[in-house]
Amino acid sequence: MRVVDIIAKKRDKQTNTEEEINFLIQSYLADESIKYQVAAWLMAAFLNGLTTNETAYLTKAMLNSGDILTINSSKPLVDKHSSGGVGDKISIPLAPLAASMGLAVPMMSGRALGITGGTVDKLEAITGYRTNLTNTEFLAIIKESGYAMTSQTATIAPADKLIYGLRDVTATVENTGLITASILSKKIAEGAQALLFDVKCGSGAFMKNIEQATNLANSLVQAAKAMGRPAMALITNMNQPLGLMTGNFLEIEESIVTLQGKGPADITALVVKQAAAMAVLGGLAKEPEAGEELAQQKLAGGEALEYFYNNIKLQGGDVAKLKADVGTRRAVYSYNITAREAGYLKIDAGLIGQSGVVLGVGRNKTEDTVDSEAGFIFNYKNGAKVNKGQQLVTLYASDEAKLAASVQLAEQAFSFSNEYTADELIYKVIS
Amino acid sequence: MRVVDIIAKKRDKQTNTEEEINFLIQSYLADESIKYQVAAWLMAAFLNGLTTNETAYLTKAMLNSGDILTINSSKPLVDKHSSGGVGDKISIPLAPLAASMGLAVPMMSGRALGITGGTVDKLEAITGYRTNLTNTEFLAIIKESGYAMTSQTATIAPADKLIYGLRDVTATVENTGLITASILSKKIAEGAQALLFDVKCGSGAFMKNIEQATNLANSLVQAAKAMGRPAMALITNMNQPLGLMTGNFLEIEESIVTLQGKGPADITALVVKQAAAMAVLGGLAKEPEAGEELAQQKLAGGEALEYFYNNIKLQGGDVAKLKADVGTRRAVYSYNITAREAGYLKIDAGLIGQSGVVLGVGRNKTEDTVDSEAGFIFNYKNGAKVNKGQQLVTLYASDEAKLAASVQLAEQAFSFSNEYTADELIYKVIS
Repeated sequence: MRVVDIIAKKRDKQTNTEEEINFLIQSYLADESIKYQVAAWLMAAFLNGLTTNETAYLTKAMLNSGDILTINSSKPLVDKHSSGGVGDKISIPLAPLAASMGLAVPMMSGRALGITGGTVDKLEAITGYRTNLTNTEFLAIIKESGYAMTSQTATIAPADKLIYGLRDVTATVENTGLITASILSKKIAEGAQALLFDVKCGSGAFMKNIEQATNLANSLVQAAKAMGRPAMALITNMNQPLGLMTGNFLEIEESIVTLQGKGPADITALVVKQAAAMAVLGGLAKEPEAGEELAQQKLAGGEALEYFYNNIKLQGGDVAKLKADVGTRRAVYSYNITAREAGYLKIDAGLIGQSGVVLGVGRNKTEDTVDSEAGFIFNYKNGAKVNKGQQLVTLYASDEAKLAASVQLAEQAFSFSNEYTADELIYKVIS
Repeated sequence: MRVVDIIAKKRDKQTNTEEEINFLIQSYLADESIKYQVAAWLMAAFLNGLTTNETAYLTKAMLNSGDILTINSSKPLVDKHSSGGVGDKISIPLAPLAASMGLAVPMMSGRALGITGGTVDKLEAITGYRTNLTNTEFLAIIKESGYAMTSQTATIAPADKLIYGLRDVTATVENTGLITASILSKKIAEGAQALLFDVKCGSGAFMKNIEQATNLANSLVQAAKAMGRPAMALITNMNQPLGLMTGNFLEIEESIVTLQGKGPADITALVVKQAAAMAVLGGLAKEPEAGEELAQQKLAGGEALEYFYNNIKLQGGDVAKLKADVGTRRAVYSYNITAREAGYLKIDAGLIGQSGVVLGVGRNKTEDTVDSEAGFIFNYKNGAKVNKGQQLVTLYASDEAKLAASVQLAEQAFSFSNEYTADELIYKVIS
């Protein structure tokens, strides 16, 4: 077998076999100097596409390049992956809620990059909370508190890291099959037996339209099934920031409010719907409705919140300090944006995301650090009728110059219309 | 400007600018470690194609990476390039014929690779003949004998060498735009002011069908014109080996016979037609017919043969020994293949080419050496009516095992039909 022949097949729109894709990845792992061949294959795959089988083969080859966690659990092992958005803290209340319902959730997450936030950065805003668990700690904490949240260790799917780095510099990032294999290889390696995908769609997401989002959702669900993992996907609205708070500590705070049963409507709805879908995938509920009922009970009864605090303690977090921090941890400089005209409000998630990168909520490059206390507290959501001069949002920053620059961007995020238009929260369910 | 953005444009079927293509090539020359980015661009260019302008920009960038010869000549500087075939010795009698007609021919040629032979390998079968001329020698010999033939020096289009090496291992060889830029950059660097392309088409050529060949011919002619070089292309039949002799010294011998006016019909016709086209391109003849007449005169009068011997002397060759060698230099082992049935003969150039690689006429890898004395002498051409048992070809080899293996391949090259079908020699003229 020769790598050049494997490239030529993909170039000619033929289907690569499992052996061929495995050989390509193995060859790359054995000798990184052949990355020019991998780059040519990636561009051929980008332009000609990958079939579901090829996507599954690539997933498997990358998965097998590192540790694959085996979790001995009497509870169904179900995880959720979000394609990322602005104000998207769903994972943080969702994991304890799902755990309180009887699922085991082995969740490895990423950091903020570009306009999208990162669950790991948000969790690190909890004083003491460790996101660099060893595999042993990760497994032990799932056993004890029903879920664990950590960043991906270097031993999980190293081939994916290598290939992602190459895609980044060869303009081969935004391809459905390649994105799918990258996500799936990591999610399967962490030990999940069933998977829910939240494919965000809109100005604050990677997928800008329903067609792109549907392609990715179908690819994720089909490839996961081809790998023997029951899977579902929700395509959800990412045109305005989720909830009323965007920022690292601010999103922890909104997660607590949500777990207390007092969260914003969109966050609560997404958390409940996703917990219900996970319950169905894990076999705890036959129908989504039953799952939703169970989720509502666990929120109302305070059990989900108890799971959250218990996990924080196990992962090294200071629960007492966290409780005291709520409502008080705000960066020192703040600015209120008011409505420049009256009308039905619309907030652009993409521009808020860009403004957030300047504030320090997110990062432009992986080497940048984030500011836990920076962020946005919104007064309204899309569709609210506002008067001229009414306060719309408060921005918090640790640096006056950054604040000024981010205000400039954020002001453009607000528009005002004469007509009310309703926003859908969930566009599609794909199973 | 960033290389990744240049790749993304080509990936998205946009047109790269001259600055972008130049930046890509310059970046690669400055830092070979970015070859993975060049590989991704090459695959995007392969799959999405290059426009005539992009092809010209790539040609120019590669051309400018090395020496560009300036030839002060009172005669029109015209060269020919063949896309390569089996038994294709046309350049060897063509260059002295064109020179005898009053053109200056600065010809840099390649070596055999795969089924196609190489002019440089054939010339080296002439005892003493040097194909590693310095630029100074090359220019001086053109002045003195009207033409010179050499291999490309390392200083000619080094970017093309770099990129060709990368294309070879990334399955991006067979693309019209990339092939065009590779050929043109070298041909323009050698000093040619007008160019004739012989695009071979058939089982013994890179281009297997008329459509592919037409695409390449159009691309070569259009890009050459975009670079300010008058150009024409002939698409010619490469389904059976050209002439009656295939082999390195054997083709020198057939070239001499042709220059003596006694060559096989196909070789003589191609040499005369191409010399006439070069005369038109160089402004020596208004119409091809006038050029053909002049060419016939120069063959009949022996002037073309005189130019040939004069050039050999200037390039270090032993003319007396060459004359004595004719008819005698044959590898020691030989085998006659006879007709296994009666019928109208058909000879497959591709299979003869493969058999020739085994014999040592050609090479599989650039590092292999060739055997000057190995080869084929055919008794017939396509369309001949043969009886069962009649001798069709003699194979010559320096090694008995190689002979046996090549006979096996060569036997499959002959087929016998009940019906006579005529072969066209020149399919199309493109200008």
